[in-house]
Amino acid sequence: MPAPIAVTFIAGRTGPWSVERIEAIAGAGLDMAERLAVLGEGPNPRAAGEVWRLSGTSSHLRYTRRAEADILAARQTGPGRPEDRRAALIPIRKSDAWWSLAQDERRAIFEEQSRHIRLGLDYLPAIARRLVHCRDQGGPFDFLTWFEFAAGHAADFDALLARLRATAEWTYVEREVDIRLVRTDAVASG
Amino acid sequence: MPAPIAVTFIAGRTGPWSVERIEAIAGAGLDMAERLAVLGEGPNPRAAGEVWRLSGTSSHLRYTRRAEADILAARQTGPGRPEDRRAALIPIRKSDAWWSLAQDERRAIFEEQSRHIRLGLDYLPAIARRLVHCRDQGGPFDFLTWFEFAAGHAADFDALLARLRATAEWTYVEREVDIRLVRTDAVASG
Repeated sequence: MPAPIAVTFIAGRTGPWSVERIEAIAGAGLDMAERLAVLGEGPNPRAAGEVWRLSGTSSHLRYTRRAEADILAARQTGPGRPEDRRAALIPIRKSDAWWSLAQDERRAIFEEQSRHIRLGLDYLPAIARRLVHCRDQGGPFDFLTWFEFAAGHAADFDALLARLRATAEWTYVEREVDIRLVRTDAVASG
Repeated sequence: MPAPIAVTFIAGRTGPWSVERIEAIAGAGLDMAERLAVLGEGPNPRAAGEVWRLSGTSSHLRYTRRAEADILAARQTGPGRPEDRRAALIPIRKSDAWWSLAQDERRAIFEEQSRHIRLGLDYLPAIARRLVHCRDQGGPFDFLTWFEFAAGHAADFDALLARLRATAEWTYVEREVDIRLVRTDAVASG
């Protein structure tokens, strides 16, 4: 896990992902757009027809223990599999009450109570995921969570979300937007 | 601990703090300047004679447990005491090896092995401190650590640094610059 890598999601008229729907789960939503682009390191000039952009960086593990990290590493794959033609971008902001907790309190809610890592493991390797941090950069969200999966796993992904949203951890989520995407460029035939 | 607060340190020709010395402890140093200003939230226009600036944000607790946080809160005071006419700004970058560790491994090195919190407690409330995070924003450092103390506690502060630099945690520090400051404006007579 070397230096943080900047990631920007730009909603507008360009990018390989077609926006299927944008749903406000908690708090304010985000405006609808036609397409979404995911851009890496470097300054990103304004895209034609840009509606909104969200930026953050990859970062180090915040709650995951070594034994958990090893299990995750053995099971998960990164984004970019050609068969993964469905994606979700779910920006999340947690409350001041969450951020005021000490590290052991947040860890206990995250895993011992809510089983966040344990729940996610049930959906590996089908659901590829990427976590982008943005709290320290300011802006409206704390995390930009990104998931990719094959169309045949869409129901599994919904089940994972339903289980996570029922946890104690989610009582600290004060803004959440669920953005669903379909890959409609020609890079793969999936 | 509400939303992160942006903090910028600007070295140049203005600001209440006179720069006494800048010492490279590990890795590259920083250029000498006459004075240092500490600025809060908001865009900060370039200062006259600016030599360098370092920016980051306050953030939530990364290793501290509730019991430790409560002990710290009972003993520590924030910066800004009129008698604190000495300060140190110590920017730090840790190695990729550190950031590749899981949370439990970093916590074990930080506290169970290195006693970082425990050592710091010995110097409270004499040494006031502020931790600014900047790893997720990119830039050359991971943390900007700031300390204020009365002239009579300067030797204690040096003792604290010597103890911290001898710990296992410090074997992961790959860049560290020790900037010492004296408050020479007229806000207090201390």
